[in-house]
Amino acid sequence: MLLEKIKSPADVKALPTDQLSKLAEEVRAACLNRVSVHGGHVGPNLGFVEATIALHRVFSAGEDKFVFDVSHQSYPHKTLTGRAFGFLDMKRLDEVSGYSSPTESPEYDTFELGHTSTSIALATGLQKSRDICGRHENIVAIIGDGSLSGGEAFEGLDTAAEIGTNLIVVVNDNEMSIAENHGGLYTNLAQLRQTRGKAEHNFFRSMGLDYMYVEEGNDIETLIEAFGKVKDIDHPIVVHIHTEKGHGYAPAVENKERWHWTTPFDIATGELRDASEGEDYGAMMGRYLLNEMKQDPKLVVVTSGTPMVAGFTPEMRAEAGKQFVDVGIAEEEAVAMISGMAKGGAHPVWNVYSTFMQRTYDQLAQDLCINGNPAVINVFCGSVLGMNDITHIGFFDIPMLTSIPNLVYLAPSCYEELMAMEKWAISQTKHPVAIRVPGGAVTHSGETFATDYSDLGKARIVKKGSRAAIIGSGASVAWAEGAAELLKADGIEPTIISQTFASHLDEGLLESLKADHEVVVVAEDGALEGGFGEKIARYYGLSRMKVACHGVKKGLYDRYSYSDLLNASGLTPEKIAEAVRSALK
Amino acid sequence: MLLEKIKSPADVKALPTDQLSKLAEEVRAACLNRVSVHGGHVGPNLGFVEATIALHRVFSAGEDKFVFDVSHQSYPHKTLTGRAFGFLDMKRLDEVSGYSSPTESPEYDTFELGHTSTSIALATGLQKSRDICGRHENIVAIIGDGSLSGGEAFEGLDTAAEIGTNLIVVVNDNEMSIAENHGGLYTNLAQLRQTRGKAEHNFFRSMGLDYMYVEEGNDIETLIEAFGKVKDIDHPIVVHIHTEKGHGYAPAVENKERWHWTTPFDIATGELRDASEGEDYGAMMGRYLLNEMKQDPKLVVVTSGTPMVAGFTPEMRAEAGKQFVDVGIAEEEAVAMISGMAKGGAHPVWNVYSTFMQRTYDQLAQDLCINGNPAVINVFCGSVLGMNDITHIGFFDIPMLTSIPNLVYLAPSCYEELMAMEKWAISQTKHPVAIRVPGGAVTHSGETFATDYSDLGKARIVKKGSRAAIIGSGASVAWAEGAAELLKADGIEPTIISQTFASHLDEGLLESLKADHEVVVVAEDGALEGGFGEKIARYYGLSRMKVACHGVKKGLYDRYSYSDLLNASGLTPEKIAEAVRSALK
Repeated sequence: MLLEKIKSPADVKALPTDQLSKLAEEVRAACLNRVSVHGGHVGPNLGFVEATIALHRVFSAGEDKFVFDVSHQSYPHKTLTGRAFGFLDMKRLDEVSGYSSPTESPEYDTFELGHTSTSIALATGLQKSRDICGRHENIVAIIGDGSLSGGEAFEGLDTAAEIGTNLIVVVNDNEMSIAENHGGLYTNLAQLRQTRGKAEHNFFRSMGLDYMYVEEGNDIETLIEAFGKVKDIDHPIVVHIHTEKGHGYAPAVENKERWHWTTPFDIATGELRDASEGEDYGAMMGRYLLNEMKQDPKLVVVTSGTPMVAGFTPEMRAEAGKQFVDVGIAEEEAVAMISGMAKGGAHPVWNVYSTFMQRTYDQLAQDLCINGNPAVINVFCGSVLGMNDITHIGFFDIPMLTSIPNLVYLAPSCYEELMAMEKWAISQTKHPVAIRVPGGAVTHSGETFATDYSDLGKARIVKKGSRAAIIGSGASVAWAEGAAELLKADGIEPTIISQTFASHLDEGLLESLKADHEVVVVAEDGALEGGFGEKIARYYGLSRMKVACHGVKKGLYDRYSYSDLLNASGLTPEKIAEAVRSALK
Repeated sequence: MLLEKIKSPADVKALPTDQLSKLAEEVRAACLNRVSVHGGHVGPNLGFVEATIALHRVFSAGEDKFVFDVSHQSYPHKTLTGRAFGFLDMKRLDEVSGYSSPTESPEYDTFELGHTSTSIALATGLQKSRDICGRHENIVAIIGDGSLSGGEAFEGLDTAAEIGTNLIVVVNDNEMSIAENHGGLYTNLAQLRQTRGKAEHNFFRSMGLDYMYVEEGNDIETLIEAFGKVKDIDHPIVVHIHTEKGHGYAPAVENKERWHWTTPFDIATGELRDASEGEDYGAMMGRYLLNEMKQDPKLVVVTSGTPMVAGFTPEMRAEAGKQFVDVGIAEEEAVAMISGMAKGGAHPVWNVYSTFMQRTYDQLAQDLCINGNPAVINVFCGSVLGMNDITHIGFFDIPMLTSIPNLVYLAPSCYEELMAMEKWAISQTKHPVAIRVPGGAVTHSGETFATDYSDLGKARIVKKGSRAAIIGSGASVAWAEGAAELLKADGIEPTIISQTFASHLDEGLLESLKADHEVVVVAEDGALEGGFGEKIARYYGLSRMKVACHGVKKGLYDRYSYSDLLNASGLTPEKIAEAVRSALK
């Protein structure tokens, strides 16, 4: 096996040319091997195997700087930069992350990367610092066509052109985002592909950039020739390469969206190893919204490049027709658009992962909330139980969203409450409303919930007790209930409260607790600092009420163990019960 | 006077054609009249007088929707939509804001607008809702060339093209941003102007949009003809009009940057009415950085379209040469770029207004802080004493920035401390550091400050006392000192602490206060919710320490009175002293 002998990019350079296609085969097999067992990104990586080998053949990684975008095409690079064990050795898969990471490889990875559209902008910083420090290395930014729809990529291109020195932007055009591409830009990319780069209009040239088109983006020799021509170039150039998403693995070529990312599967058949039959909030939300659309022709569901966050399969998108809008990976546009839609009389609902909400703080504050337009946002994976890669943490949503004036942020704790809130949010006309879809497995309380949340701040008493109150929201209400069970043995019957509004305190309820409660324990499925626990602590600051806030401490977390982090954060029934006992002593 | 009789756009339509240029003269004079007394945006408004009249002549505002961008060109529109009194009647100037506002004019203003690059994205929402509701009005987005550099504008264009129905984007190209334009896109705009829209490359057409060029952007008849051609068009089109910034007022034409915005001035001479000789932190910071650059060739100062935020005049920019970078209005690019620069060994400093920081939350979190690159950010006007328009509030910075892991946010309370922190921040290599430039007038304590802030969280005891502690930061340290003066009469000598790090608690100090203090009053020059006061309240939650948090309650504030808001927020020496007295009773 060649790959086992590739310890660094120098070994790629040293290979005889006639062995490069064998290397490509091995890199592809290694990627498939990893994702089939571990899960991960399939299509984008498979399509970028040849380009990666060519890049390492032409440039000198380490000295020359590669900046990937979102990292979904970085696996082949990892296999060639001393991390093949993470793809070949079944026992060591977890040692390698799914993302570009200088922590993992200080020499060959320039940035921790997991959000899209950042590579060119980051590369302009390397470009400028190289120039100012008087060095001469090549800066290579790699970006997929799908990522070009994000405004930061545009801003990066704009600045790169002005700086005017060496910067090579490799546009890896596999004709797909996660799902199909959307936006006027993609018409131009299609024209460029059809004309082999000679179309009348050229987005990149119009930005003041030099441009080269490479049709055979999965042919190593062609790519080596192309990259050879631009190496050490004295100005910025876009090398637009046409690749095939999923190249070399038939199922992934056939169904590109399904094979963008996957859980573990059988390579031979493409079948999932563990095709879970469990419910998930995304799919349930998608079905609900699709059904609602039929009653309400003004209901428009919006996604920013991730239709499956709310289970909108290609079939469901087709069924929704003009009532479903994918703006591409462009969260700022999504928020401005739903504000405009609500202003214009439509009923927009944007479904988004919590980690990507933060790409649009200003649009939430300015375009939406200052204007008070009644758009609805469903926030998925805003939970300690959500995604756990360092770049995809979703539990900073409450500090971020609850400091934006005029935003109502609801936090349901079960399926029934989620749907009651959704119904209200879509029908009301007064507030921008975000709903924090609960973390973890779907729970059904079986309860019936009122569908009026216009009394902003009104919390829900799950169980009336005395001496101690435990306040949770979403998944943590169940942890509070677990604590109450444990406390029975101590003769303590705490009050349990669901913090229905993450954005608003129920001051009346908090005040009433003073009469017969000594301590309030706040258990947040989220960040400690900036959470609603601190707001409650502030509320009781001058009173005798004790307040214990449990939540995740501010910090960087990467591929954490759910149970370890919950435990360390005091977010288990045991820890919550212990806090109550300790305070009542 | 014609303008006095224009009560609504219908009156503009009804005017004989030969009176339109007289109307333009009057509108221009009205704009000048207002800004000469009240201050405001000069150049962009004067350049858009003719276009505004033409828009109202061709379209039916109210039914057709105009969406301005950043609102710097919205004054002429205001004069024609029932708000001329705000430009003509000296007693009523304050009744009209400097920004587009549906609160002010529900019929003719579609959105509250004050941040750039939003108009097209917002307009796509109106476009989509019109289509889904089956209506047929024209949607007109108006955007300056300077605002096109922001990613949200690009995202909007991308989506507009895909939706494919009526949307008219008027690009008001006056060849300027606030200062000169920067970015590759502007080379293309120049080519389009030089060729009267016939250049080989065309950014807008490459985005899939139809396009029309109008050279005579200050000629009403030409504009009426052009807008007439696109009215009721069935697809999106960009109408690129070439205007003159400051048109009709010689000083503003001559020095476009100086006359972008101004404080009150004498119309005849162009001289400021009150040329303040007072110090300001921006200018002082600029001089400091320019001087430092000479010692440190790797120091690079970055701005995102607002060089004057840190006093970088055109002359200083020229002197700084390659050590000064203006990325245009593109805050995301700025943050990614400084991260890349710091990674590449340069010493970048980005100067930015607090209100625009929020345009880059994700880049701060992902591109910068996860990567831990040692870039420096100077945050201006992060204070209750900063800008007070609803769209420009700067005091939500602490909730936003302090919930981002790995960001150090320093809060100096005087000039000497600011400069000590700046020196440390630039020289250290471990942390992304933001510095909250104090609000209000420059204060000199005359003290010497250590230039080592590597002990993260270490607060500063301004004065040791007992029983009560008052914790402030920035401008509020002085309010705390004022409270201490008042408390002398009560025989109370409080401890006064400057919260040096807005991002980190000094837990050792907080713990030590328990020994001989009964109450901590936290006075924040900023937001109450999500501020450091709440973190302190959380810290003391289980102890007997009383905590009173004073800060500005979450809400929308527009053109507030500084003294009223400080008073209502408990941020005066009197209110702070009263809180101490009350707690010690």
